[in-house]
Amino acid sequence: MNTLPEHVRPVPLEKAYRLLNHGPTVLVSAADGARRNVMAAAWSMPVDFNPPKVAVVIDGATFTRELIEASGELVLSVPCRESAEMTMQVGTVGARDLTEDKFSRFGIATFAGSKVSAPLIRDCVAWLACQVLPHPGNEQAHDLFLATVVAAYADERVFTDGHWHFETAPEALRTLHYVAGGHFYAIGDPLVVRTDGLPG
Amino acid sequence: MNTLPEHVRPVPLEKAYRLLNHGPTVLVSAADGARRNVMAAAWSMPVDFNPPKVAVVIDGATFTRELIEASGELVLSVPCRESAEMTMQVGTVGARDLTEDKFSRFGIATFAGSKVSAPLIRDCVAWLACQVLPHPGNEQAHDLFLATVVAAYADERVFTDGHWHFETAPEALRTLHYVAGGHFYAIGDPLVVRTDGLPG
Repeated sequence: MNTLPEHVRPVPLEKAYRLLNHGPTVLVSAADGARRNVMAAAWSMPVDFNPPKVAVVIDGATFTRELIEASGELVLSVPCRESAEMTMQVGTVGARDLTEDKFSRFGIATFAGSKVSAPLIRDCVAWLACQVLPHPGNEQAHDLFLATVVAAYADERVFTDGHWHFETAPEALRTLHYVAGGHFYAIGDPLVVRTDGLPG
Repeated sequence: MNTLPEHVRPVPLEKAYRLLNHGPTVLVSAADGARRNVMAAAWSMPVDFNPPKVAVVIDGATFTRELIEASGELVLSVPCRESAEMTMQVGTVGARDLTEDKFSRFGIATFAGSKVSAPLIRDCVAWLACQVLPHPGNEQAHDLFLATVVAAYADERVFTDGHWHFETAPEALRTLHYVAGGHFYAIGDPLVVRTDGLPG
């Protein structure tokens, strides 16, 4: 059994979709033996509730893609304001342009989850460990990967009992929503729409 | 040539991905002849830049799905704080449980775009008119639809020159990011990460 970092708690699989439901930018990490990498991806989403499944677009030229195809696994880590610079670094610099791996180059700390060997990225607020559901047609034509979530975690300071609590957590823990050219928006204020008054 | 509503401007297709890149919840509308419907979907994302393509999950039991399969077209409209109640209404009530269509029932105004016959939803801030790329395997196994964006529009008060400007627009125009159970977050503050200082 792993010892998880402080504040990191398992999330029940049936609630895992909620970690991505509001559309955050993610980090995608993968490992194949001693080879490992991490990149940023703005294009991911849930595709099923239970068992939870996700979709993510991973460019065919990336080293992360090579590792995912070799291992059949990937991890989505959800970065936040405090990891915005790291998100741009791993999203802008290609592993093949470096002489050391991105973790060493950018001082990125990781931890181990259960079920998959790919590293989970520290200084994030949620994590989804996934096994790829092979769909060669999607992968080749659209760089689109489907995967089953086999373990999920969140930072208890900002996600508990199946709900995000950005409004009562430190600002640094708000998720990032990328637009382009280094421009992000952080997630903002909560809004509750009562459903019991809906006309039937 | 259509006359677009006040503040609605065409978006160049190569910038259309930016309308969804930050992960907003969307409305999905479709029409087949005189039959038309609209539903909410939290699960959509871009999958390509140019030509722009999107992915969206559409439950097999919905009337919207039937109309999409009949017409090969769909429209994604991006709602905002001022359309939060309507988003919950069309996301909670099924068309088949109503004796009139949702547009009449909930007083939803629409307008016409070019290229597709499905209605664009008023009181939203961005619109993507799409033609379905048939992938029967994805549709049947995962309720996952891929589509090419053939026309795009945005409200010039909040999206101009290829960029969102939530911070200088009325609060009512901030996009919605759904979690569960009527709980949304609005998009928040901008964050710019300089890339020119990145280690190479």
